[in-house]
Amino acid sequence: MKIHVVNPNTSTAMTEAIGRAASAIAGPGVQVRTTCPSMGPASIESHYDEALSVPGLLSEIASSEADGHVIACFGDPGLEAARELVDGPVIGIAEAAMRTAALVGRGFSVVTTLDRTRGRAWDLAHRYGMAGFCRGVSACDVPVLEVEAAVDAVVAACRAAVAADGSDVVVLGCAGMTSQRAEIERRVGVPVVDGVQAAVLQVESLVRMGLRTSAAGEFAAPPPKPYSGLLEAFAVPALRNGHRSAGYSAAENR
Amino acid sequence: MKIHVVNPNTSTAMTEAIGRAASAIAGPGVQVRTTCPSMGPASIESHYDEALSVPGLLSEIASSEADGHVIACFGDPGLEAARELVDGPVIGIAEAAMRTAALVGRGFSVVTTLDRTRGRAWDLAHRYGMAGFCRGVSACDVPVLEVEAAVDAVVAACRAAVAADGSDVVVLGCAGMTSQRAEIERRVGVPVVDGVQAAVLQVESLVRMGLRTSAAGEFAAPPPKPYSGLLEAFAVPALRNGHRSAGYSAAENR
Amino acid sequence: MKIHVVNPNTSTAMTEAIGRAASAIAGPGVQVRTTCPSMGPASIESHYDEALSVPGLLSEIASSEADGHVIACFGDPGLEAARELVDGPVIGIAEAAMRTAALVGRGFSVVTTLDRTRGRAWDLAHRYGMAGFCRGVSACDVPVLEVEAAVDAVVAACRAAVAADGSDVVVLGCAGMTSQRAEIERRVGVPVVDGVQAAVLQVESLVRMGLRTSAAGEFAAPPPKPYSGLLEAFAVPALRNGHRSAGYSAAENR
Amino acid sequence: MKIHVVNPNTSTAMTEAIGRAASAIAGPGVQVRTTCPSMGPASIESHYDEALSVPGLLSEIASSEADGHVIACFGDPGLEAARELVDGPVIGIAEAAMRTAALVGRGFSVVTTLDRTRGRAWDLAHRYGMAGFCRGVSACDVPVLEVEAAVDAVVAACRAAVAADGSDVVVLGCAGMTSQRAEIERRVGVPVVDGVQAAVLQVESLVRMGLRTSAAGEFAAPPPKPYSGLLEAFAVPALRNGHRSAGYSAAENR
Amino acid sequence: MKIHVVNPNTSTAMTEAIGRAASAIAGPGVQVRTTCPSMGPASIESHYDEALSVPGLLSEIASSEADGHVIACFGDPGLEAARELVDGPVIGIAEAAMRTAALVGRGFSVVTTLDRTRGRAWDLAHRYGMAGFCRGVSACDVPVLEVEAAVDAVVAACRAAVAADGSDVVVLGCAGMTSQRAEIERRVGVPVVDGVQAAVLQVESLVRMGLRTSAAGEFAAPPPKPYSGLLEAFAVPALRNGHRSAGYSAAENR
Amino acid sequence: MKIHVVNPNTSTAMTEAIGRAASAIAGPGVQVRTTCPSMGPASIESHYDEALSVPGLLSEIASSEADGHVIACFGDPGLEAARELVDGPVIGIAEAAMRTAALVGRGFSVVTTLDRTRGRAWDLAHRYGMAGFCRGVSACDVPVLEVEAAVDAVVAACRAAVAADGSDVVVLGCAGMTSQRAEIERRVGVPVVDGVQAAVLQVESLVRMGLRTSAAGEFAAPPPKPYSGLLEAFAVPALRNGHRSAGYSAAENR
Repeated sequence: MKIHVVNPNTSTAMTEAIGRAASAIAGPGVQVRTTCPSMGPASIESHYDEALSVPGLLSEIASSEADGHVIACFGDPGLEAARELVDGPVIGIAEAAMRTAALVGRGFSVVTTLDRTRGRAWDLAHRYGMAGFCRGVSACDVPVLEVEAAVDAVVAACRAAVAADGSDVVVLGCAGMTSQRAEIERRVGVPVVDGVQAAVLQVESLVRMGLRTSAAGEFAAPPPKPYSGLLEAFAVPALRNGHRSAGYSAAENR
Repeated sequence: MKIHVVNPNTSTAMTEAIGRAASAIAGPGVQVRTTCPSMGPASIESHYDEALSVPGLLSEIASSEADGHVIACFGDPGLEAARELVDGPVIGIAEAAMRTAALVGRGFSVVTTLDRTRGRAWDLAHRYGMAGFCRGVSACDVPVLEVEAAVDAVVAACRAAVAADGSDVVVLGCAGMTSQRAEIERRVGVPVVDGVQAAVLQVESLVRMGLRTSAAGEFAAPPPKPYSGLLEAFAVPALRNGHRSAGYSAAENR
Repeated sequence: MKIHVVNPNTSTAMTEAIGRAASAIAGPGVQVRTTCPSMGPASIESHYDEALSVPGLLSEIASSEADGHVIACFGDPGLEAARELVDGPVIGIAEAAMRTAALVGRGFSVVTTLDRTRGRAWDLAHRYGMAGFCRGVSACDVPVLEVEAAVDAVVAACRAAVAADGSDVVVLGCAGMTSQRAEIERRVGVPVVDGVQAAVLQVESLVRMGLRTSAAGEFAAPPPKPYSGLLEAFAVPALRNGHRSAGYSAAENR
Repeated sequence: MKIHVVNPNTSTAMTEAIGRAASAIAGPGVQVRTTCPSMGPASIESHYDEALSVPGLLSEIASSEADGHVIACFGDPGLEAARELVDGPVIGIAEAAMRTAALVGRGFSVVTTLDRTRGRAWDLAHRYGMAGFCRGVSACDVPVLEVEAAVDAVVAACRAAVAADGSDVVVLGCAGMTSQRAEIERRVGVPVVDGVQAAVLQVESLVRMGLRTSAAGEFAAPPPKPYSGLLEAFAVPALRNGHRSAGYSAAENR
Repeated sequence: MKIHVVNPNTSTAMTEAIGRAASAIAGPGVQVRTTCPSMGPASIESHYDEALSVPGLLSEIASSEADGHVIACFGDPGLEAARELVDGPVIGIAEAAMRTAALVGRGFSVVTTLDRTRGRAWDLAHRYGMAGFCRGVSACDVPVLEVEAAVDAVVAACRAAVAADGSDVVVLGCAGMTSQRAEIERRVGVPVVDGVQAAVLQVESLVRMGLRTSAAGEFAAPPPKPYSGLLEAFAVPALRNGHRSAGYSAAENR
Repeated sequence: MKIHVVNPNTSTAMTEAIGRAASAIAGPGVQVRTTCPSMGPASIESHYDEALSVPGLLSEIASSEADGHVIACFGDPGLEAARELVDGPVIGIAEAAMRTAALVGRGFSVVTTLDRTRGRAWDLAHRYGMAGFCRGVSACDVPVLEVEAAVDAVVAACRAAVAADGSDVVVLGCAGMTSQRAEIERRVGVPVVDGVQAAVLQVESLVRMGLRTSAAGEFAAPPPKPYSGLLEAFAVPALRNGHRSAGYSAAENR
């Protein structure tokens, strides 16, 4: 089984850290490849960054032969577009982390990087039906590309969040924190969920069950059409080379 | 007052139709300019198209001197990113149409183009708090670029929706329907809301009240950083030339 | 275009202040008339006051020739009854203010007068689908008829609310604050929304779009019947003299 | 114990029918008095009627010496204002019926009179937290003052609602149906809840427990103030003669 | 009329205290019998205790001839199973207390025993549609079997909750507090609702109205089948001896 | 890694079928043991059956040395009690199936056995935050112990549900359907999710990540106390022999 993890920002250091965590958690026989796009923002810290990360992310996903994909940014950028683009499952790390956290406690606190990303985390909690489990979203006020080295600040923010929110689980709100999960858990004293690990295992589980994104409705392959200008190469037929050929379309007799 | 309407797809015919509707509804002294990007999808009929429309859309908005902006696609693509990018208000047509419809009836039906876009309309209804007013989302099964000429199909879908949903208002679920609003309303017999008109007037109202997007939190200007590759020119400092200079930052003494 | 603003309490000083704000914001060619009833409570500070303000309010609305109406009290008293009574749109200032605030920020704080009115504001936020945007409702503890002169107390309450709620927009929770909007915004440092202005512009926009309250369902003209005693003159046929004659009833062929 | 049931419309025939049902269900030693106002609409079939029924209703309640009050109209008009006005509990029949129905089944259907009243029933279901138990609201299309004699139409509507909604309980959506509850239940075959009975017993229960409306917040006696014109006599101090004297105000040492 | 109150733990002292409160509140002619099971946990302070209390509770209920039943533990254990088991109404004290509290104020605080039971109280608030009225759930940190003697701690927790939550009503979150209701109310100064009293009166009301659990759907008698081992005697046919014989099954002609 | 799957009913045939599915899906190096209790109901088709299945289920779980547990009944009986009882993760199949289904489509249909179990499935959808993804719950009207052999009826119910609900994924609503998943998916033409498989992989994933149920709050080991009568052996200290010793209690310095 091949799993492709895409870090949607262009930082190779962060991509490598994500890759180490992803590879370490995958099961026997699972090949994990972690890449980042050649275009787009160096880090994702605003709605603007997030929107501009999506073309590169989709390009990475479309050009991959993997059985399933992980989007390794806590804003889950481009998730629905990616699901239209390939047959195999695509999982965002916020989605995976929040759903995992709800399995091991009564309520979780999300600890993210910059304060301005808190709204996006709440939006995702609502979209995924997890708002009832999300007790709070806090920021540690460290930029994305510095957070891996700032474990003390993250631990402090986690402890403050658990106390203020009355939560019993922590969700790490940035892929840059993945390498520190075990240390943070040890120091905070409640289960700490990292979305990179959770998403890799979720994709692995889906592939093992033979579950792919449903092609029966909204997530069917997008209708082909021309694209212009800078994005001409993203025209649907050019991008999707043979994907979706074996989709869930062979229903017996509906 | 200058209002800039952006059609996020690259169809000039559709852009012109939107421009006529937008100009016709604007108040005395309001200059409306309607444009479309030079890059991206010819029409927006999937999550994929929508994601790829955003760079071009943001480029249009960032390069404009307008007092406020309208995003003229019913998926409201890039809305939050755009709000970070300019000082003046930015309104999506789905947002404007749904909120307007809730003012003139008990519950509305959205009539959109392709069936696969229904999920997005529901997502927006939830995001905007309008799900309690949205009685249903139906498709007329006409592609975006053909819908202006397919008024009979739209009318038939509207009538069916009003009857099935028990609604008393219709929301047009595509900017391509804007030129047909009056005819549809006459033939369906309930108020019919077009988001292009509603959004233009909403921007005009906000500008008249002196209200701009709050710069106090999530929608402050995004942190500057390098962008790579195909999207290098989208790096935040390059794009935002002087915007936000007179934002809501002069609080007396907090 | 004629817009009729009704202050549902009987204070002429407050009516005049509302009238100045309403007239100042209306567009070219819009005639704004602001009145208050000749009967009912001097100010609205309880559910009881609100209920008793409605007959006078409805009488004002029914006797008016305007194209649209504004109900200028933050409890939006009598809103649904008024919509049954006249053809043109009727907008409450709480409704208009909350929906406007959600367009310029992530979440708003409502600042109202007396503490006991907070429940009503929350009820309206829920009814309008705005509870997800409403971060808090606070009181400045100044009675309605004194609030215009108590701008310092309002500013203090707004600042406290923004800090406690983590909001980025303020909604003024009383029509008596309308004349102070600009000063409050300047001193608080986030966008401040006044419902009187927002509602006038919302009515103006609806009239310009040709949108009236749907007569296809719940808001059709009420069935005629006798009224007794003190309220005999409010019998439906007596009150509605010719209104609704040109309603949305001429559907082609349903 | 004295319970006062107020029918907010002015129909004496309907008031007598309500009175018979209310008296029949009350416990030993409970005196039930049922009245209707001397002013207002002959029946309540619109938001307008409902709004205009409130002054008369409040006048009835304020002038009564009862230990608790029932508002016997399914729109629960004036409920919150009434709670401010007297010390004892005040219960609306929609509130009582919906909460009772949720105790004896998985989900209920409301069957009301005219189609245009359905929206109000849904609004109340949401306000009372009962929307999750409310499977549907249907109309039997019989005016309020004719519904007592139209039991076949009500039974037919109840049967249709139970089948369409998949419900296992029926809530009668008009006080005019109270005398027919037992027959409807016998013919429909599921529990049928009448709000008049439910509300009388709810008030009786609250009084027996010594529970009155909390005076600690929103429902404290309204601030006194002048009222003008036709409603001059409704000024708060004139209306409340001695009520609330023994309220929940004697907290030991807060 | 016979009402059976079941304390699901095995403490006879607590059962007697509950019995005194239940008997004292019941109306003339109502016989109240209060029992506890001969098997199961000594007190209910965890999900585990609660689950293990249910067989004994159901055994008590099934062997009773009462017209209606009360489950006197604030977790409402076994409520839905009990409704399948007997014809008459079955009411839990959390359900009764929360719904009663919503009738006498804007929002209530629940004060429970151990901190770990707070989650269950919130779950029930959501299940019953009462979450919008529940302002907070606090613990007084006293074990169930000691709480009757710890009235000062309960009063302190109630006062703190009312202040922190901004509530105007208190709900007692344990049947062990029932004997102290009046004292707590006197000392806290807001209405205090005890679920034992509320549930007894709710059952009495339902019986008086002739309302029993609907047998038309989910709560019909469970399908008979063999049970094994320790629980062999709980097999459905053995347990239900003649109950449900006169259920709501005689619908005229569906 | 050892995973223990418990079928809470006493059918050995069904337990074996579940065991085959569970073992087949588990990853390399994972030992799966599937058992059923020696006491309780032969199948679970009512709230009553479900409640009486819990003691046997908890006994199975408590006496096991596994790293994690699966509760293989779609009502997820005893889930929270089980989480208090052992250190490792415990997952219910409804929980696992619903959360998995939301990852591969826009909305799912649950297809269950008897109509009377539909309410429980909806309750769980709400509890898990999945109600927004659950488009409908249908029954195939086949008893639990016959459903494995009734694949045609299940397929027919799935097809009808997908069409009626507009869903793009099916969730199998009974552990007895697990062996038929692949055939049902092939014949229905949309992804079909089996909770047994999904839960086994979810437990495997949690164990691999080192995540156990949080011991910081509600799910800490239950307070010890005596149990009486038939259930005497379930007293907490007797049952939990050494579990939780290595829980998340070693926080560094909170």
